[in-house]
Amino acid sequence: MGRVTTRVRRTRLDVVSGARVERTDTVAVEEPLEIRVDGISLTTTMRTPGDDFDLAIGHLLTEGLLHGADEVATLMHCTDLDESGSPTFNVVDVTLAPGAVLHRAPRERTQGMTSACGVCGSASVDAVRTSSRYAVAGDPLSLSAEVVAGLPDALRRQQPVFDRTGGVHAAGLATASGDLVHVREDVGRHNAVDKVVGAAARVGSLPLAGHVLVVSARASFEIIQKASVVGIPAVVAVGAPTSLAVDLAVDRGITLVAFTRHPSMSVYSRPDRLA
Amino acid sequence: MGRVTTRVRRTRLDVVSGARVERTDTVAVEEPLEIRVDGISLTTTMRTPGDDFDLAIGHLLTEGLLHGADEVATLMHCTDLDESGSPTFNVVDVTLAPGAVLHRAPRERTQGMTSACGVCGSASVDAVRTSSRYAVAGDPLSLSAEVVAGLPDALRRQQPVFDRTGGVHAAGLATASGDLVHVREDVGRHNAVDKVVGAAARVGSLPLAGHVLVVSARASFEIIQKASVVGIPAVVAVGAPTSLAVDLAVDRGITLVAFTRHPSMSVYSRPDRLA
Repeated sequence: MGRVTTRVRRTRLDVVSGARVERTDTVAVEEPLEIRVDGISLTTTMRTPGDDFDLAIGHLLTEGLLHGADEVATLMHCTDLDESGSPTFNVVDVTLAPGAVLHRAPRERTQGMTSACGVCGSASVDAVRTSSRYAVAGDPLSLSAEVVAGLPDALRRQQPVFDRTGGVHAAGLATASGDLVHVREDVGRHNAVDKVVGAAARVGSLPLAGHVLVVSARASFEIIQKASVVGIPAVVAVGAPTSLAVDLAVDRGITLVAFTRHPSMSVYSRPDRLA
Repeated sequence: MGRVTTRVRRTRLDVVSGARVERTDTVAVEEPLEIRVDGISLTTTMRTPGDDFDLAIGHLLTEGLLHGADEVATLMHCTDLDESGSPTFNVVDVTLAPGAVLHRAPRERTQGMTSACGVCGSASVDAVRTSSRYAVAGDPLSLSAEVVAGLPDALRRQQPVFDRTGGVHAAGLATASGDLVHVREDVGRHNAVDKVVGAAARVGSLPLAGHVLVVSARASFEIIQKASVVGIPAVVAVGAPTSLAVDLAVDRGITLVAFTRHPSMSVYSRPDRLA
């Protein structure tokens, strides 16, 4: 398995003291992972190695390409060698179960088409709105505001790679009582979300009803989109939300909490779920 | 032109005081921008509206698809209407100058190919390493550590959208004496970099030798890649670097400074450029 962190040389400068110190430093590993389905290259994402099977399955689920981990027969790391002769582990090949198929064309495949100017924009906007099979608006989840306010700190206590590098995001999947059942770190915040979804799907089944997705970063459109597609009714972010994240959360009936720092938080949609 | 920020409703909760206040809040706008070249859809990126022509040209340059703004004849916003009848401005169509062509196949077009497991990983890694036409290693840039230490604060003072929303990244292009000649904000940090490169290229020409790219975020592989492709010899980041960012900066001879917070900073490659 690839390394999660690595050591590099650095020079630490201080312009007040004039100190110039050479030493090594720990940084988060970032490497490309190519995800293939039945041997066909689907996408390449820059990720932190370590939970590649979770990432591959989670990506296929949150993009709406698969509906459950049971549609996957096998997951395999292709062990290509790098220049030094070490395995790179930078490709995961997903073999679908007998009879299983991708439920829609991968987003990447929709690139490169000609379209007349009369359909400007709308095609793009529609393309990024992957419809969800689950009606999360009806999820009866009820959350204590005290539990929600504590989720970012609980997530922060389970970020060993951030502790060493200061350079990765984290995502967590929590129950209504605030227990973090899966936590994953990655240099890419979308990857961290895909990893927790994949981890949950590999030991259970979709939808992830009654759960809360906690993210160390901002809440963008794609984070809400991914939650929606796998049936998560609430997203708690440490950072700010974007306009489209709020729009989508309101549209889908997802509770969106942002700027969450104990003891306060801002709720941008479905505050009725917070007691 | 699309809006940069918008107002949304939110409920502010405080679990200590028990306060629950309903009011409006300003969030950064996030909308898809489709970039077309001569009518062919190239890519769709989630961005903050406002500098779409800079973003489109900058993206084509930093991806190595074009070598200069003079290869572009016209830039046009397609004014499709949204559901309310307002223009969406979510497509930019780039018309190439007579005789100009894209210098390589867009990265997106390389998806969806079958490849045998024998070339695992290496194809992916190579695909994300867009080669640069400029030898930045030989750039004679010399920087004062005091100037570098002050760049993040100088950038921070030119982030009006962040002031209102707390939800956008910024990138700046500075001279060796620390003057920020272009600053742009965006919900996506790669977009912010593309915007400053596009802004610079539209009033000058590549390479951007002797300049410093300042980013409000972490230094990932793609940020260093983009700097390398347009000939920028130094990148200053507020946050952490990734392993691949350090590798690429060392390989290309780019000065990479990260964790830059006055009065200190960490230099991960080519510290000889800092006096």
